[in-house]
Amino acid sequence: MPELATTTDNTQTVDGKSGIAAVISQLKDRFANRCSTSAALREQHGHTTTWLKNQPPEAVVFAESTEDVADAVKICAHAGVPVIAFGAGSSLEGHVNAPFGGVSIDLSRMNAVLEVNAADLDCRVQAGVTRKQLNSYIRDTGLFFPIDPGADASLGGMAATRASGTNAVRYGTMKDAVLGLTVVTADGRIIKTGGRAKKSSAGYDLTRLFVGSEGTLGVITELTLRLHGQPEAISGGICPFPDVASACNAVSTTIQMGLPVARIELLDEVQIRGCNIYSKLGLAETPTLFLEFHGSEASVREQSEMFSSIAEEFGGGPFEWATAAEDRTRLWTARHDAYWAGKALKPDADIMVTDVCVPISRLADCVAETAEDIRAEGFLAPIVGHVGDGNFHVQVLVNLDDPEEKHRTEKFVERLSLRAIDMGGTCTGEHGVGQGKQKYMAREHGEALEVMRAVKQALDPHNIMNPGKILPQS
Amino acid sequence: MPELATTTDNTQTVDGKSGIAAVISQLKDRFANRCSTSAALREQHGHTTTWLKNQPPEAVVFAESTEDVADAVKICAHAGVPVIAFGAGSSLEGHVNAPFGGVSIDLSRMNAVLEVNAADLDCRVQAGVTRKQLNSYIRDTGLFFPIDPGADASLGGMAATRASGTNAVRYGTMKDAVLGLTVVTADGRIIKTGGRAKKSSAGYDLTRLFVGSEGTLGVITELTLRLHGQPEAISGGICPFPDVASACNAVSTTIQMGLPVARIELLDEVQIRGCNIYSKLGLAETPTLFLEFHGSEASVREQSEMFSSIAEEFGGGPFEWATAAEDRTRLWTARHDAYWAGKALKPDADIMVTDVCVPISRLADCVAETAEDIRAEGFLAPIVGHVGDGNFHVQVLVNLDDPEEKHRTEKFVERLSLRAIDMGGTCTGEHGVGQGKQKYMAREHGEALEVMRAVKQALDPHNIMNPGKILPQS
Repeated sequence: MPELATTTDNTQTVDGKSGIAAVISQLKDRFANRCSTSAALREQHGHTTTWLKNQPPEAVVFAESTEDVADAVKICAHAGVPVIAFGAGSSLEGHVNAPFGGVSIDLSRMNAVLEVNAADLDCRVQAGVTRKQLNSYIRDTGLFFPIDPGADASLGGMAATRASGTNAVRYGTMKDAVLGLTVVTADGRIIKTGGRAKKSSAGYDLTRLFVGSEGTLGVITELTLRLHGQPEAISGGICPFPDVASACNAVSTTIQMGLPVARIELLDEVQIRGCNIYSKLGLAETPTLFLEFHGSEASVREQSEMFSSIAEEFGGGPFEWATAAEDRTRLWTARHDAYWAGKALKPDADIMVTDVCVPISRLADCVAETAEDIRAEGFLAPIVGHVGDGNFHVQVLVNLDDPEEKHRTEKFVERLSLRAIDMGGTCTGEHGVGQGKQKYMAREHGEALEVMRAVKQALDPHNIMNPGKILPQS
Repeated sequence: MPELATTTDNTQTVDGKSGIAAVISQLKDRFANRCSTSAALREQHGHTTTWLKNQPPEAVVFAESTEDVADAVKICAHAGVPVIAFGAGSSLEGHVNAPFGGVSIDLSRMNAVLEVNAADLDCRVQAGVTRKQLNSYIRDTGLFFPIDPGADASLGGMAATRASGTNAVRYGTMKDAVLGLTVVTADGRIIKTGGRAKKSSAGYDLTRLFVGSEGTLGVITELTLRLHGQPEAISGGICPFPDVASACNAVSTTIQMGLPVARIELLDEVQIRGCNIYSKLGLAETPTLFLEFHGSEASVREQSEMFSSIAEEFGGGPFEWATAAEDRTRLWTARHDAYWAGKALKPDADIMVTDVCVPISRLADCVAETAEDIRAEGFLAPIVGHVGDGNFHVQVLVNLDDPEEKHRTEKFVERLSLRAIDMGGTCTGEHGVGQGKQKYMAREHGEALEVMRAVKQALDPHNIMNPGKILPQS
C-alpha cells in the first residue's frame, strides 16, 4: 500500500483575507451584537469533536433569516473573506474549522419549522432546526423524519455533510430526504433548488450538488424535507453472535434477501462493554446486532421470524425481543450514545473516528481485517456500524499527545480508508470529508476530482466558501 | 398568466463549427465505416417522437467502447464541433436533435452487461444496454431492474434524462437507481463517479449531477446500477372510478397512508378507449387505476385489502384482480403502449405530449383543471400518469400543419406547465427538458438557472456537449 501524506495541508490561498477588520466593522454595523469576536465564542465555533485541532474563525455572526446570511456573505465576498456555516457544531471532520480565518455564520437561531404538509409527506424548515426538534414538532401528525446521526445535529448541517444514521438502510440518507433547498451562493444571491414534486427531470440536480458540499459551494438556509408515516407496528431487539464475521454475514444475507429491515446495527464486544458502562445495559460482551422492523403487525412479525432463522444459520442468537417501547428507546439511546460509551472505556483518551463504507459483500472481510489490525496494534478501539449499508465506524481511543501513538493511529486510519476504497467502497459513508479525509480524495475519485474542482471554481471563484475543506490542495 | 415565447429559440452560438469537414475526415480515419454521413442515418439520429422538427447531425459515429467515445469527443472538442450522445432514440423532447449540427455518437453497440454482483444487488452495464435487455439478462439471478419508461430505452439515455416510469412510486427514479457512472467529459477525459458503496459522503455528488444532464455536461458510457430482489409475491389489478378527481383522491390517500404500492397508474376514459382499440382490453371506458403490489404473500394481501377500502371510500370499484401472471402482463403491456394506444384514437394525428408532476395533494386539482381545459378546447387528449408520484401525461392528438390548432395546443401545454409549476410542481417529471421545455426553465428555477449555467460553463466551456438543450438562451 503506497504512503500517503499523514497530515492535512491547508496552505492553499484564499483571496484578499487582509480585509477582515473592515469586514468585522461592517458586520457589526449590520448585525450589532449578533456579530461577536469574543475568544470563547470563536473557539466554540471552531469546535471539532475529534482529533483535529481547533482553528477558530475571526468573528461569529448569528443569522436569523436567509437575508441575514445573504448580507453577511455579501460583506465577506466583497472583501474576499472566508465564510463558514455553523449549525450544531457536531461534525466530526473539522468542517467548521477556519484554517484561513474568516467569519462563522451561526444558523442555530434559524430554528423555525416553516410548514408541514402532512398530505404531501413533506415539510419546510430553517437550517438550524435539529432532527430531534423536527420530530417533536411533527409527532402529532403521525409522521416522522428518519435520518438520525448520533448527535442532535442541525438539518442544514446534516444536508451539508450528506448525513445518515441508523435508519438509512430503510429510509435512505439526506441525499434522499431533501426535496429542495434555499441556498445563499458565494456572491450572496439567494436561490431555490428542487421543489415539492416527488420527482423532476427539469435540469441539473442542484439540490444533490449542494447536499454533501459541506458549505463549500454555498450556505444552506432552508430545506424542504421528505417525511414518512410512523409505522403501524415496530418490533426489534438484539441478537448476539460469536464473532464479528458471523454477524456481518448474517447482515449481508438479510440485505440480499431483500428483508426491508428498518435498522440493523453492529456493536462489537468492545463497544458493548462501553455501552454497558455508559448506558448500564448489562448485555453479554460479544458482537451484537441491534435490529428494528417497521411495518404492519403481520409484516413486522414475518420480518423478525425471517431474520431469526438467518441469524441461527450463522451461529447467532437467541434473538432477544424488546417489545415494550421504553426498552427499545433504552437500546437505541444507548446506540446513539455509542461515541460517549466508547469514551467511557478510557475517559482520558482522545478519539480518532473512522467512517468507511463498503459493498455489503465485502463487509465481513473489511470488518474482520480491521478487527485483526486493531488486535495487532493493541488498540482499544470499539467497532460500531450501520452494517446494513456496509458502513461502520472504528473509534480509536488514543493519546494524541504521544507522537508515536498518534502516528500509529493515523497509519491505522489510513490503512482502513484505503482498504475500503480498494474494496470498491468509500473512506466516508456519512461523516463527510472536512479536513480529515481530504488526503483520500484523489485515491477515491481519481480524475473526477478535477471535475469537482471545476464545479467549486465555477460556484465559488474566489474560494471564500468554507475554504480548506473537501478538496485537497492541488 | 403571463405570455411566454411559444417557440424554442436555438440561435445561441457554438464555437468554431466551421471545422466539421476536417472533423469528419479525422473521424473516418479513426473509425472507418463506423463513421457515417449517410442522409438516412443522420436523419434517424435526429429522430424525435413528438412535435419537434428533425435536426439531423452532420455525421454519426458508432462507438464500441468508452475509449471510442473519448477519441470522438477529443476530435470534436479540438474543432469546437458539437457532440450529441444517442442511445435508443426514444426521447420525447428533441434531446438528440442537432440544432447546431455536429456529430451524433451512437452508443447502441455498447450493449454489454459487464458484471452482475447479485450479493450486492448491483450491476455494471455499458450505456447502450436497454432496460428490457438488462432484465432478460438478470432474470435467473432473482433480481430485477425496476425503472421502466414507456420505451425500451437505453440505460445511458435513461440516466441522462433522469427517467422513471410505473415503478418509481416504490423504487424511485434513475436518480436513485444509479450508483456510479463512467463519463467522457467535454475535453475527452474519462472519469468515474460514485462507486459501489450504498452511500458515501466523499465530496460532490457528481453522479447525480450527470444524471439528468441530458448529455450537456458529458457522455455517459457505463453505469453501475442498483438492482432489487424480485418480490416473493405480486398481485394487482384494475379499479374503475366515476371521474378523474375521485381516482386522484384515492391515490393521494393511498400514498398518504404509506401503503407501499409498487405501481398505481391512472388512465382516463379517453386513454382506456385507446387501449381498448390498440391492446384489445375490452374495459369499461371510465377513469381507471392500474395497480400492483409487491411483497410477501401476506403483505400483498394486506395492501390490496387496504387499497380496496380506500377505493370504495371514493366511489371506486369494484377492484378487479389480475392474479394470473399473463393477465398482469397483458395489462402492463397495454399501459406501456399507452402512447401508441393514444395514437390509435386518431391515427393520422400528430402528438404533443406533456409531463407535469405536482405535489400529491394538488394532483386531483391539477388533473381536474386540465381535463376541464381539454374539454373547453375540444381536444382529443388522453390522460395517463404515474399518479402515485403526482406525475401525469396529456397526449394531445392534433394536426400540427394547421397553424391555429398548433397555436392552441402550444398555449394549452403552456397553461398546463405553468399550472404545475405554480402548484409547487415541475414542467417535467421524467421526460427531461431537451428543446421542448426550455422556455419553462426560468419560471421553474428562477435565479438557480444561473447556477446551472455556471456549472455548464465550467464543465463544457466551449458549449459543444449537446448544445441547445436544457438551458434556454440567456
